[in-house]
Amino acid sequence: MAIQVSVCGPSDCTEDDRRNARELGRLLAERGAVVVCGGYTGVMAAVAAGARSAGGTVVGILSRDDAEGADPNLSIVVPTGAGQARNSVIVNAAAAVVVVGGSWGTLSELALAMQRGRAPVVQLGGWTVLGQDGEPVPGVLHATTPEEALALTGLWH
Amino acid sequence: MAIQVSVCGPSDCTEDDRRNARELGRLLAERGAVVVCGGYTGVMAAVAAGARSAGGTVVGILSRDDAEGADPNLSIVVPTGAGQARNSVIVNAAAAVVVVGGSWGTLSELALAMQRGRAPVVQLGGWTVLGQDGEPVPGVLHATTPEEALALTGLWH
Amino acid sequence: MAIQVSVCGPSDCTEDDRRNARELGRLLAERGAVVVCGGYTGVMAAVAAGARSAGGTVVGILSRDDAEGADPNLSIVVPTGAGQARNSVIVNAAAAVVVVGGSWGTLSELALAMQRGRAPVVQLGGWTVLGQDGEPVPGVLHATTPEEALALTGLWH
Amino acid sequence: MAIQVSVCGPSDCTEDDRRNARELGRLLAERGAVVVCGGYTGVMAAVAAGARSAGGTVVGILSRDDAEGADPNLSIVVPTGAGQARNSVIVNAAAAVVVVGGSWGTLSELALAMQRGRAPVVQLGGWTVLGQDGEPVPGVLHATTPEEALALTGLWH
Repeated sequence: MAIQVSVCGPSDCTEDDRRNARELGRLLAERGAVVVCGGYTGVMAAVAAGARSAGGTVVGILSRDDAEGADPNLSIVVPTGAGQARNSVIVNAAAAVVVVGGSWGTLSELALAMQRGRAPVVQLGGWTVLGQDGEPVPGVLHATTPEEALALTGLWH
Repeated sequence: MAIQVSVCGPSDCTEDDRRNARELGRLLAERGAVVVCGGYTGVMAAVAAGARSAGGTVVGILSRDDAEGADPNLSIVVPTGAGQARNSVIVNAAAAVVVVGGSWGTLSELALAMQRGRAPVVQLGGWTVLGQDGEPVPGVLHATTPEEALALTGLWH
Repeated sequence: MAIQVSVCGPSDCTEDDRRNARELGRLLAERGAVVVCGGYTGVMAAVAAGARSAGGTVVGILSRDDAEGADPNLSIVVPTGAGQARNSVIVNAAAAVVVVGGSWGTLSELALAMQRGRAPVVQLGGWTVLGQDGEPVPGVLHATTPEEALALTGLWH
Repeated sequence: MAIQVSVCGPSDCTEDDRRNARELGRLLAERGAVVVCGGYTGVMAAVAAGARSAGGTVVGILSRDDAEGADPNLSIVVPTGAGQARNSVIVNAAAAVVVVGGSWGTLSELALAMQRGRAPVVQLGGWTVLGQDGEPVPGVLHATTPEEALALTGLWH
């Protein structure tokens, strides 16, 4: 079984997010990892495109119960029919979670991954979470490039 | 059908969170609202205790597939068996979502409620989310007391 | 916490199914049980009407992520947003499952309840399941009246 | 995107079921289809072994929220954490559903696939469902060999 890495991010993302996601997809595919994502547009489509450009496998965990609107670069679709609850399936499926950019949906995935606590969570850009003391809540790893994000997962040495 | 309000918060909460949750439960029951919560300890148990003290109805949306560990003050249990994915059921079930205190699980509920975007989301204490511009992401309503939290839901005038 | 009993059955049901479901709802409410059902039309609406006629509480575990189309006799709605996967939540929520009438959706609930194996499953009318030996698969309890169905749950003596 | 076919069947299956499932897996892989299954033992393991023997891709839609107990022949795991509710994800993911052998869990998958009504459902051995008229409920396609099962899906000509 190949290593599975989930990449999360908004549908409505910035150009930087898109470039980072595409590069992440490419690097993950080159390392032989299966990319897991939400399967629609924005960061999800960019990471799928990057992975496919390097011959990789991309799994789309869809909120709908059919493949409507799914990105054409997906290798495999899993139409959960679970709506937003599919966000927790995306994080369960991964040996590491990389979050690119910010949105409420993306933050829910980051938070679910941290609550789960069984895989490294790396953030590349996006939102910041401050605790009641006004300091960033510890635990999330912060990267500034796709290469650094992969290094921080600790999955490759 | 009574108005349903979801109250979310950590198992491992502060004394302030517990007091706020208990008071919220009491106020909601007095207004005839059904309280929806995650059904276990901490803020969940406190809001249930508050609501029951005023003769209210409390629904526990459980992560487990049975009632093990459910708070004794729940009127009704819904053992989803969905794990963390039940967090999205909690926010779906509410005309308003009130978040008390901070944890990753609680943040996932806040984020899922904001992503859904169909009910007011009020925060009483807890964590702060900053956008890429370093400013708090708009949309969440902030209260400093349980009374103010209920006023901000806009459900009672 | 009151005893919770799930009553499952088709949207598109016979007049007999409707009469049985309504009577089951009434009897369950008289015994102080909370009725759990799928929350829409047919058997679901009939059991809700019966329970409400006797002042009971009815919980609708909805497939949609909002209350659209929910029966007006429900006391509480749980919009799971899980589609057909909500069928497993209906059976998890019950100390006994009573199945009235037949449809593929109803059969999935019967089968999920039997797979779970933690609560009695009683059938009132409906479809028959034959094993590879051509005989009815054992385990399901068969009733011919609502009163007998409740007796077979073993919850009241 | 490759055609995805779900193969469902019991953990505790007969030798015939195992042989049929293994052969189905092999034939599906030879046709370039991705096999989707429940990911554990019995029929699930046999279809995975068959598909892998022909170089195919096998996706395991797991009930647990991690990969514990997953069959080693899976190419990709999707730990839904949804318990039995994952049965509906298995049927959503398929252009055709083939059911091998009988158990309550397997019957729930057959019933969910028929309720969904968007893909052919083929049965190879297993249980029989009789309607209120005592006749088999129409709609399920019946095969006696793996080759016939694939022919009945209508996906290949």
